Amino acid sequence: MVEFQQTTLDNGLRIAAEIVPDAYTAAFGYFVRSGARDETDPESGLSHFLEHMVFKGTANRTAAEVNRELDELGGQSNAYTSEEQTVYYGTVLPKYQQRKLELLTDLMRPTLLDADFQTERLVILEEIAKYEDQPPFGAFERSMERRYGTAGLGRRVLGTKESIEAMTPEAMRAYFEQRYQPGNMVLAAAGNVDFDALVKQATELTASWPSQPVSNDLLYPAPASPPTAAAEDDVDAAETSLAYVVRHYHGPNALDPDRIAMRLLSTIIGDDGGSRLFWELIDTGRAEAAATWTQEFLDSGLMFLYLSCAREDVTANLRLIDGVFERVQQEGVTEDELQQVINKTTAAAIMQSERPGSRLFSVGSNWLTRSEYVGLDEMIDRYKSVSTQTIARLLEKYDLQTITEVHAGE
Amino acid sequence: MVEFQQTTLDNGLRIAAEIVPDAYTAAFGYFVRSGARDETDPESGLSHFLEHMVFKGTANRTAAEVNRELDELGGQSNAYTSEEQTVYYGTVLPKYQQRKLELLTDLMRPTLLDADFQTERLVILEEIAKYEDQPPFGAFERSMERRYGTAGLGRRVLGTKESIEAMTPEAMRAYFEQRYQPGNMVLAAAGNVDFDALVKQATELTASWPSQPVSNDLLYPAPASPPTAAAEDDVDAAETSLAYVVRHYHGPNALDPDRIAMRLLSTIIGDDGGSRLFWELIDTGRAEAAATWTQEFLDSGLMFLYLSCAREDVTANLRLIDGVFERVQQEGVTEDELQQVINKTTAAAIMQSERPGSRLFSVGSNWLTRSEYVGLDEMIDRYKSVSTQTIARLLEKYDLQTITEVHAGE
Repeated sequence: MVEFQQTTLDNGLRIAAEIVPDAYTAAFGYFVRSGARDETDPESGLSHFLEHMVFKGTANRTAAEVNRELDELGGQSNAYTSEEQTVYYGTVLPKYQQRKLELLTDLMRPTLLDADFQTERLVILEEIAKYEDQPPFGAFERSMERRYGTAGLGRRVLGTKESIEAMTPEAMRAYFEQRYQPGNMVLAAAGNVDFDALVKQATELTASWPSQPVSNDLLYPAPASPPTAAAEDDVDAAETSLAYVVRHYHGPNALDPDRIAMRLLSTIIGDDGGSRLFWELIDTGRAEAAATWTQEFLDSGLMFLYLSCAREDVTANLRLIDGVFERVQQEGVTEDELQQVINKTTAAAIMQSERPGSRLFSVGSNWLTRSEYVGLDEMIDRYKSVSTQTIARLLEKYDLQTITEVHAGE
Repeated sequence: MVEFQQTTLDNGLRIAAEIVPDAYTAAFGYFVRSGARDETDPESGLSHFLEHMVFKGTANRTAAEVNRELDELGGQSNAYTSEEQTVYYGTVLPKYQQRKLELLTDLMRPTLLDADFQTERLVILEEIAKYEDQPPFGAFERSMERRYGTAGLGRRVLGTKESIEAMTPEAMRAYFEQRYQPGNMVLAAAGNVDFDALVKQATELTASWPSQPVSNDLLYPAPASPPTAAAEDDVDAAETSLAYVVRHYHGPNALDPDRIAMRLLSTIIGDDGGSRLFWELIDTGRAEAAATWTQEFLDSGLMFLYLSCAREDVTANLRLIDGVFERVQQEGVTEDELQQVINKTTAAAIMQSERPGSRLFSVGSNWLTRSEYVGLDEMIDRYKSVSTQTIARLLEKYDLQTITEVHAGE
């Protein structure tokens, strides 16, 4: 028996929970509408930097105490920052609900001390350097800059060396007060959750949080088409063994119902096992990776293509990929392959729903983005309702033309 | 209610299952004693190459059919190869037990066609090239070669470009017949499993498998001490943003009961959150990564250290790390920090046991390696029985001296 419950506290904090009374664990998370696209130029990287600072201590706990309690409660506790969200989450045994919620909620009011800020800046700079050493060596970030420009969705989540070095604790505190308003956050829960106790405790713990109206107008709406597409923007990474290519195609945004069909189409084209690209490029040994996936932002959507292969095979492989896309564009997909990916997608969703820690992201993110709850059965129905006609219509709306292309290591 | 059941079929196949009747899923896997250390020089990389070939088709299925059925049954299905094992596994809803087992068992008799071998060779070569582009740029492999020489545990799981290019399908078929004997394999299961049906079906499906005695004498036993330690063996990766260091310390092997205490000691020293190295090097922004973990082989054990940081900080950071190790060696660990890591380790184990797909690896690997079943409660008891005196004794037996060190990117 799965039950959805939700409420909004007087201070604006929204709470959403998918309750599965016989689940073995309970997962909790704060979903904050705060990400790279909300940042101005001098704030570039601030959302992610702030995510780090949240673990550096509160009025009630030192960093060591935070760390120790997270350990004691067990399970995966972590956080991440994307273009549009910062999420803090953890899974615990049900008996720890109260302790976990108290800890997570306390973390949402970090002290943000100057000394911690200065030290953590070094950690961020090292994280930036780390990604410079990893394939595809900045090609994803470069592709986003090309598609969206250098602000909004084109911003790097980590920021740049320059923006991080110039950042001040004052700017972080101002940004925090603006973005970490209760009205800009969702407290989500999934699994073996006591919802009444959750609401009561959250009400008490957040009673002192300041509550001002939050503007969520997009600072930099996504441009309809790429601003520029200069080929000389390719990433310079000369000593690699393989070459890397990132491409964008148009796709539905996070509010567009067509996103469900596009995910299936992307799975048919470029899932990492059994897709058209898999049989054409991977199974044949032509490429090390050739995959597609969708990414949905509030006002823009993309299908990504990622290719890695020997340097001398890039041109031939891109031609094969173009062939795969052209055939899909012209002929659509077969009934058989559509049913196969529907089976695959729904089977995977059913298996993942075993873990409250996995359902949490669906519950929290849907509520933050769309104030919508989509249970597993509803999700499966949506996938099953996609037909080859839906895909044909989708292909009229979003043609499979490359709109951005970035190479690294050539 | 958790119940352990096991049996050995007439052909020598061992079956071990941890049965949790109210689990939501069931996980199954074949654990084969076949890994890099079982290979001779011309066979280097063969175990891993063979793992790939297993998915290329059987007498009953094409590669496309294998792929499609794995998708239909849902859940994570995959395989991996290490120095000592090759493992094929998957998690399904209980109603698919029979189909999953039939598929997995069929895969264990691959056709190994010449044409598939030639194509898959290209895939392996690309996988080797891929790892050359990834931090720490071969430093782990180099460290193993230094510690163990170029045979046995010193062999690269992927093999080398040269060994893969020279390999023949005949050699693979001979290796397969030798290593994939039922007597050299464990069929493991975990979760909502029908054990009687499992044994009955496995008996029927493997009835035709040839069964000869298997010698599991180690071809190249691990040397007691490193053969050489030439500093010029450092990995050349000049254009990296960060520098990378891999070190080895002595540790217990997979049959040594002290391995439990060593895992806790390693967590105290260098776990990625809240350890001594974490507070000294990560929280302070001195390094991007500074972590330790243990690895246990049949006749040898290691504690690994991994450091990544700015090039100019390597020397100072290694000095700090030496300081941390020396203090532990001289003073042991405190009661408080030991209890903290016991809490952390057992809490994580409890949380992971939620998933049959996670328990499977413990059940299968323990049975293959030690013919031992260790339930969650027993595992927790073992961790809890470790005292500061156990750690003190451990530190006498395994001193914390660096025995191997490899640098990359300097």
